[in-house]
Amino acid sequence: MKEIIAIIRMNKVNPTKKALADIGVCGLHAIKVMGRGKIHIDLTVLDNIGATEEIAGIVTDSLAKGSRLIPKRMLTILVQDSEIDKVVNTIISVNKEGNKGDGKIFICPVGDAVRVRTGDRGEAAI
Amino acid sequence: MKEIIAIIRMNKVNPTKKALADIGVCGLHAIKVMGRGKIHIDLTVLDNIGATEEIAGIVTDSLAKGSRLIPKRMLTILVQDSEIDKVVNTIISVNKEGNKGDGKIFICPVGDAVRVRTGDRGEAAI
Amino acid sequence: MKEIIAIIRMNKVNPTKKALADIGVCGLHAIKVMGRGKIHIDLTVLDNIGATEEIAGIVTDSLAKGSRLIPKRMLTILVQDSEIDKVVNTIISVNKEGNKGDGKIFICPVGDAVRVRTGDRGEAAI
Repeated sequence: MKEIIAIIRMNKVNPTKKALADIGVCGLHAIKVMGRGKIHIDLTVLDNIGATEEIAGIVTDSLAKGSRLIPKRMLTILVQDSEIDKVVNTIISVNKEGNKGDGKIFICPVGDAVRVRTGDRGEAAI
Repeated sequence: MKEIIAIIRMNKVNPTKKALADIGVCGLHAIKVMGRGKIHIDLTVLDNIGATEEIAGIVTDSLAKGSRLIPKRMLTILVQDSEIDKVVNTIISVNKEGNKGDGKIFICPVGDAVRVRTGDRGEAAI
Repeated sequence: MKEIIAIIRMNKVNPTKKALADIGVCGLHAIKVMGRGKIHIDLTVLDNIGATEEIAGIVTDSLAKGSRLIPKRMLTILVQDSEIDKVVNTIISVNKEGNKGDGKIFICPVGDAVRVRTGDRGEAAI
């Protein structure tokens, strides 16, 4: 049993939800988050204006420190181990546009799960 | 040390908080989430109107894809291993109404915890 | 690979973000949470007004049950194992004021990570 956590663009929640339903995965939760990934600086721009390595470093630092957090959605999906690959591939297929900010997926261990209504535990609770 | 994550109805946050205080568990965090669990279709309804298995499949699919996410609250509670059962049972006792949407509980491993004010680590930080 | 989860004061998100950028950690996500830690009662106050142990217990109980949740921010930061200490120490250095409510840090296992844009997995995806 694993928890798949996906950080995706806000406008991708619905298409991702539908694509997951298509492969039989209906249960998910979406949380508003503000985030950013690594800062990627196009150094060739700095090269073109003749910036030294030192100046490039200062620019990178200043961008990193000042960069604003972007609104994103965090999806959490509880899956059986056998479903991990198809869920990850489905999330990638909907969210991959080839741009920075396409998102990240984390796969985290879960010790146990309980369905409150029935008391079912383990895989029966997924 | 474990993190107990409970997805519950919005109106159950306060009674759950009080029931946990009653058993000596005061520390918790609540997060707004939009979610849904498995889609449960009452197939006897479809039977009664003479729907074929194929039609039932289409209805189920279409409900799954179109189903809206419901506002819920996610509680996160850091507990010692010895407290897991009483915390899980307390959450169930407050939230179990016997209806779909009563909620889910996940029990996740935590490697370490730190109290920022004192630097206490491990169980001392819970 | 670990997920560092820090619950901090709302007004500490920006200084924490900047301090983390200073040590080269740019990727993070911030989530609104409502929370509280352990209830700490100053028993000497009750002593001074001559409260019995029984009354002190009732006061503590009632504070615990009625205590409101406080708005906080939860930061989640994916790090390589080698970065854990410097990230934890940086978060402490910015957030430690010596008061209750300074915050908590949890260090949780992560099985795998995927960058959606490239399909990079593991440490390459951090």
